[in-house]
Amino acid sequence: MDLGPSERVKPLIDQVSQMIEQEIIPLEGEYFSEVPKDGRWTLTNRQLEILEGLKATAKDRQLWNFWLTDSERGYGITTVEYAYLAEEMGKSRLAPEVFNCNAPDTGNMEVFERYASPPLKEKWLTPLLAGHIRSAYLMTEPDVGSSDATNLRMSCIRDGDYYILNGEKWWASGAGDPRCAVYLVMVRTPTDKGKHRQHSMIVVPADTPGVTVLRPMEVFGHDDAPHGHMHIRFENVKVPASNLLLEEGAGFEVAQGRLGPGRIHHCMRAIGLAEAALATMCERSLSREAFGRSLHQLGANHDIIAECRIEIEQARLLCLKAAWMMDNASAKEAAIWISQIKVVAPRMALKVTDEAMQMLGAKGISQDANLAHQWINLRTLRFADGPDAVHRRQIARAELRKHTSERI
Amino acid sequence: MDLGPSERVKPLIDQVSQMIEQEIIPLEGEYFSEVPKDGRWTLTNRQLEILEGLKATAKDRQLWNFWLTDSERGYGITTVEYAYLAEEMGKSRLAPEVFNCNAPDTGNMEVFERYASPPLKEKWLTPLLAGHIRSAYLMTEPDVGSSDATNLRMSCIRDGDYYILNGEKWWASGAGDPRCAVYLVMVRTPTDKGKHRQHSMIVVPADTPGVTVLRPMEVFGHDDAPHGHMHIRFENVKVPASNLLLEEGAGFEVAQGRLGPGRIHHCMRAIGLAEAALATMCERSLSREAFGRSLHQLGANHDIIAECRIEIEQARLLCLKAAWMMDNASAKEAAIWISQIKVVAPRMALKVTDEAMQMLGAKGISQDANLAHQWINLRTLRFADGPDAVHRRQIARAELRKHTSERI
Amino acid sequence: MDLGPSERVKPLIDQVSQMIEQEIIPLEGEYFSEVPKDGRWTLTNRQLEILEGLKATAKDRQLWNFWLTDSERGYGITTVEYAYLAEEMGKSRLAPEVFNCNAPDTGNMEVFERYASPPLKEKWLTPLLAGHIRSAYLMTEPDVGSSDATNLRMSCIRDGDYYILNGEKWWASGAGDPRCAVYLVMVRTPTDKGKHRQHSMIVVPADTPGVTVLRPMEVFGHDDAPHGHMHIRFENVKVPASNLLLEEGAGFEVAQGRLGPGRIHHCMRAIGLAEAALATMCERSLSREAFGRSLHQLGANHDIIAECRIEIEQARLLCLKAAWMMDNASAKEAAIWISQIKVVAPRMALKVTDEAMQMLGAKGISQDANLAHQWINLRTLRFADGPDAVHRRQIARAELRKHTSERI
Amino acid sequence: MDLGPSERVKPLIDQVSQMIEQEIIPLEGEYFSEVPKDGRWTLTNRQLEILEGLKATAKDRQLWNFWLTDSERGYGITTVEYAYLAEEMGKSRLAPEVFNCNAPDTGNMEVFERYASPPLKEKWLTPLLAGHIRSAYLMTEPDVGSSDATNLRMSCIRDGDYYILNGEKWWASGAGDPRCAVYLVMVRTPTDKGKHRQHSMIVVPADTPGVTVLRPMEVFGHDDAPHGHMHIRFENVKVPASNLLLEEGAGFEVAQGRLGPGRIHHCMRAIGLAEAALATMCERSLSREAFGRSLHQLGANHDIIAECRIEIEQARLLCLKAAWMMDNASAKEAAIWISQIKVVAPRMALKVTDEAMQMLGAKGISQDANLAHQWINLRTLRFADGPDAVHRRQIARAELRKHTSERI
Repeated sequence: MDLGPSERVKPLIDQVSQMIEQEIIPLEGEYFSEVPKDGRWTLTNRQLEILEGLKATAKDRQLWNFWLTDSERGYGITTVEYAYLAEEMGKSRLAPEVFNCNAPDTGNMEVFERYASPPLKEKWLTPLLAGHIRSAYLMTEPDVGSSDATNLRMSCIRDGDYYILNGEKWWASGAGDPRCAVYLVMVRTPTDKGKHRQHSMIVVPADTPGVTVLRPMEVFGHDDAPHGHMHIRFENVKVPASNLLLEEGAGFEVAQGRLGPGRIHHCMRAIGLAEAALATMCERSLSREAFGRSLHQLGANHDIIAECRIEIEQARLLCLKAAWMMDNASAKEAAIWISQIKVVAPRMALKVTDEAMQMLGAKGISQDANLAHQWINLRTLRFADGPDAVHRRQIARAELRKHTSERI
Repeated sequence: MDLGPSERVKPLIDQVSQMIEQEIIPLEGEYFSEVPKDGRWTLTNRQLEILEGLKATAKDRQLWNFWLTDSERGYGITTVEYAYLAEEMGKSRLAPEVFNCNAPDTGNMEVFERYASPPLKEKWLTPLLAGHIRSAYLMTEPDVGSSDATNLRMSCIRDGDYYILNGEKWWASGAGDPRCAVYLVMVRTPTDKGKHRQHSMIVVPADTPGVTVLRPMEVFGHDDAPHGHMHIRFENVKVPASNLLLEEGAGFEVAQGRLGPGRIHHCMRAIGLAEAALATMCERSLSREAFGRSLHQLGANHDIIAECRIEIEQARLLCLKAAWMMDNASAKEAAIWISQIKVVAPRMALKVTDEAMQMLGAKGISQDANLAHQWINLRTLRFADGPDAVHRRQIARAELRKHTSERI
Repeated sequence: MDLGPSERVKPLIDQVSQMIEQEIIPLEGEYFSEVPKDGRWTLTNRQLEILEGLKATAKDRQLWNFWLTDSERGYGITTVEYAYLAEEMGKSRLAPEVFNCNAPDTGNMEVFERYASPPLKEKWLTPLLAGHIRSAYLMTEPDVGSSDATNLRMSCIRDGDYYILNGEKWWASGAGDPRCAVYLVMVRTPTDKGKHRQHSMIVVPADTPGVTVLRPMEVFGHDDAPHGHMHIRFENVKVPASNLLLEEGAGFEVAQGRLGPGRIHHCMRAIGLAEAALATMCERSLSREAFGRSLHQLGANHDIIAECRIEIEQARLLCLKAAWMMDNASAKEAAIWISQIKVVAPRMALKVTDEAMQMLGAKGISQDANLAHQWINLRTLRFADGPDAVHRRQIARAELRKHTSERI
Repeated sequence: MDLGPSERVKPLIDQVSQMIEQEIIPLEGEYFSEVPKDGRWTLTNRQLEILEGLKATAKDRQLWNFWLTDSERGYGITTVEYAYLAEEMGKSRLAPEVFNCNAPDTGNMEVFERYASPPLKEKWLTPLLAGHIRSAYLMTEPDVGSSDATNLRMSCIRDGDYYILNGEKWWASGAGDPRCAVYLVMVRTPTDKGKHRQHSMIVVPADTPGVTVLRPMEVFGHDDAPHGHMHIRFENVKVPASNLLLEEGAGFEVAQGRLGPGRIHHCMRAIGLAEAALATMCERSLSREAFGRSLHQLGANHDIIAECRIEIEQARLLCLKAAWMMDNASAKEAAIWISQIKVVAPRMALKVTDEAMQMLGAKGISQDANLAHQWINLRTLRFADGPDAVHRRQIARAELRKHTSERI
């Protein structure tokens, strides 16, 4: 069980982390300050200039699409190797897109790669891999408990060579971006089979008539413009039947194929954020004084720093093990490891970030530090791609099955 | 040790809670949506209409200035009795000001009441008690570890009948409000006495020349306009020597007199927020279904609800005990109880709010619930009026002193 | 809501705590070292001399049977007042029995007092109140999940004027004591009513033929001789029908009447243990040095001490509130408060004791400190009278009922 | 970073785990029940027969001395490989000694191997490696805060070709065993060098005149006979000067060489215990019913099981990483990883064991389960070889050093 980093990936880690530190982070402040108070769902010329410039540089250096681990179209590295790169990218808000490794596009490209017909691949995967368009994944619905995806009920009715969609989706991340051209939509297509065969995944061009973006969902009061987490209504939205992936009833199969990589990529980046927060905490505790001593010498601060270090290392190792399982075992076997890291990584990174905020004092929650924004983003991960409780339930059931032949 | 509620306060609790539920909360959405994208440090006519209308109603009903517990100017209720009212007020963002019981004004009025000369009282306390002006408290400085207040170093030099102030303060909450007319400022006035005799408290009219509001500090990305937490520069700010409270070197004495009530009022309101979050959590867990069962029947949800209930009750009782000590023991004895509840209440309310967010799913962190805003506000309380670690240190030292005659 | 201590109970607290400190604790070491390696289920003459001597002293001083709060036979104090006394008694292993306030006898006497016929009272309650005999409570069974008491299945069949009992009970605390003369036994007596009407409580003299003590149950390897937690078999045990309390099917009613007081008494004593552990921790942290500093100045020790103080105060207040509810509200209303403190007090006291052990180093878990024994005893309370999870379930259901009219 | 298990070690894991399950565990009950109530510091003939029989079998099968990883005398496996074997051995109380891999002998043999002269090796290491004698390590002293080993003060004065030792040591684990023939003793030998050059390590035959075993230290009331944790007095104990290892002042160097492996071996075994506890918990939760459902379906039990699985996996990975550092990096670099797992593994295993006890109900803390004994043994590991707080301090200082060139 080689958890790396491999010799092959070491120079890539250096290239990626140097580009982030020296070329990307210096432009982040300007990029995000550009979002206008009105007309938030646009990118300004300067934003496009920054972003496309960085993307072109990354592409030139062949630092591009690392995430596509097991495809001939892909970079050819393993998930374990990717983990080291994604951790670095996590430290910057802009970096994942610069290297075309950002959510939700990687997950969506994964779906096109694995499940789409050649024409759909040609139409959508090619420009996505090139970074020319963006995409969104429409799963969660406002009216049902979506943590149990069998509850999803957006209607999708066959009508000749078309399907007609009606219903509402929300938390469509990235759908605010003007470059977002295509949606993957989980819909209900009832069959007489089991409860995990009642749904399908269908490709919907964002500009299809009947699609209305109702509003941005706010995350702790922020709309995350221009990315956005949109609430979208479908009214008699008509798409070609050939846009349905695999077959009717295969929605869960497609979703699982997407969610495994999507989940672990979030975790990899969260570990990078935790490392950044611990560094911030240490620096502050060395440079401030109170009660006649350096901050790090006061109270429980040594213990806090030590526990953060320990939790980061444990999370990283678990993430690498889950990645290794994805590379070396079946998707079903790997899933339970992905669930484990999905519970651990956001919680750990939230804790480290919270401790860092506390160590910095009020500065820690202000615009003078990155910690508050980071905390908010991390908090969403305890829901995204399944809430903690659902993952714990999966882990427990797998554990119990080791001790019984009965159905758990 | 009667922790109430007394017969006297019971009808007041009813009046306050009914007014909040029926008259204040219904206007909150409109009030806060009124804050303009530009010109944020103003109150619109509609905002003033709402706020002053509600204040007039409260004053008419003699639901006003409850917090002033031990003064002939005050309402004549005990701190224990006030705890029950403040808890109710905590459930609404607007309510504390409607009843003229909002931070930081109550603490500042407490200072004027206890330590100010009759002319200063006449000039500032009278309009504050009437709700005609607002005030700010300027303690924390950007350049020093302010959790140890002996570090504070804003310069204040005697010049004839005046003092000249130079330096910077930040996190001056309420100083963004256009009605904020006066600051209480902690300044350094070196003496040859001990380290707690090196500072003074001085009254500075907000419009004094040389005072510049540099920027609003953001709390998790929010500027809290029009209230605001301002970063303020003092350049040769000249105020009459009679504006200095008590005497040179009495700054810590004044600050302690202010901070005790200020701290516990925050805690009382935090308990109200926690109750609101638990109610939200229960309602959601009863109304949603997943995996074929009502949400409350799933996983650890019963345990989560039970632990929240337990923590709220424990915090409330500790808060009432601290309030009782304020009413019945010396300030020094009460201080250690205030420190205890100051550690407990924000942490408890944060936990309950976080669990509620998780129970609601992504809705819980969106604009469709109050929880995200509530969480952010509560998070600031782990710094405000002293970080947790400083309070724990005080509690521990008091505990150790029971077992030794040595200086701890 | 007066949570005391009342003027009436203050001198009693002094008398009780002084007698414990000066007269009881000095004899404890000798008392427990007297337990012979063989013949453990006897009391030696010296043990009886110590115990009966102390009991006689307590009785003489009218420090006796405080627990019986709401009976004319009782002491006439409230449950709130008793809480202060029981906390003191908790600090000594021998003290509760010295004052005739020990488990399980107080709970059993409560049952006789409330539910027994005059002849049964005369035969058993009178000598129990006098401290002449001891008793045991037989509830839990080895073969069923007894945390759900509806699972209990000891058979009890009417046979003319008698009942015939068959089955096994274990964890019959106190049944090892040679003075234990009577058992209260929960038995199954099926009816056609609901699941909480299938059981009865019956009085069984310990010397009834067919009763066999199989073995002592060990608690972390200790048999707690001569008290003991016995595993007992019933084979055709024949008792008069008049020994059945109230009526067939009333077992749960009787059990609930017993368990409320029993549970809270354990909690009161646990708080006393926690106080003792915190004192031990503080003394050690003041008297030891490492790395050139006093132990209390190192690492997180201030924080640990502060958190222990906070948790103790919160638990004590919650315990007093639960006691106040027992004095002032219905049994049903009080039950949910008892469940809360039943979850909190053992957990809190375990944590404080564990922290104290850690502060003492290896001495803390050795015979040179009381902490290890204390920890073990406290650990049993997370099962005794219902495991934590069952109490949390009750608390959650009560909370949810506030928000729905449906059956929860 | 290959964290295994290697192909080479896989068959060894199978052999070791099968022998434990099929040959060792079946004899454990008899072995430990043999300890006589009097004369506890002997091994009965039957005990010797069991133990030496199993050892002979293990030796025959070349399942012996795995722990000696980097010596030509050793087994030739890596520390990573050994981790997998030690985890299995941890599941049985007798297994470590059967494979001659038990504490404290492995640590002591490590010292002889690395630091002893050829004659000392011949005299003590040879019979230790053969399993013919046992040894003890005497570090901790009753009168000083031994977590800071610079406090140790057993006197050791040169007298010609001899040293004369005076003082007391306690918690000499294994010194109760009648086969324990030799002690490694940390003594104070003052020099004019730094504080870590004031001590030495010296070899003392157990039968040297002046050595008196005062008493066994009890662990939660147990003396762990015949192994024992002895309190030993040295009165003018005279040993040849050549028994001092390396040189005067090298005590810390020797101790560190010993403690690294000793610490991680404890952790490896603790992980095995945690796995056993989780299995017990799962089996119980599948086989018991309450409230009409299988125990595992109730309350937070799925969450508890999942969190235990997660914590075990994280601890195992961290342990393997620390082992890998021992194999691949300097002792100094590895030390910080050993400190991390030393904090994590006992805490994790205690938690899992505690949850298992709770899931089993009162049975879980009785003689009918192994959990109580296991919990007690694990609790000692939070002190053994350095308390948690000291390890956290080391970890924090290493972390801070990454951010400053100043001395931390």
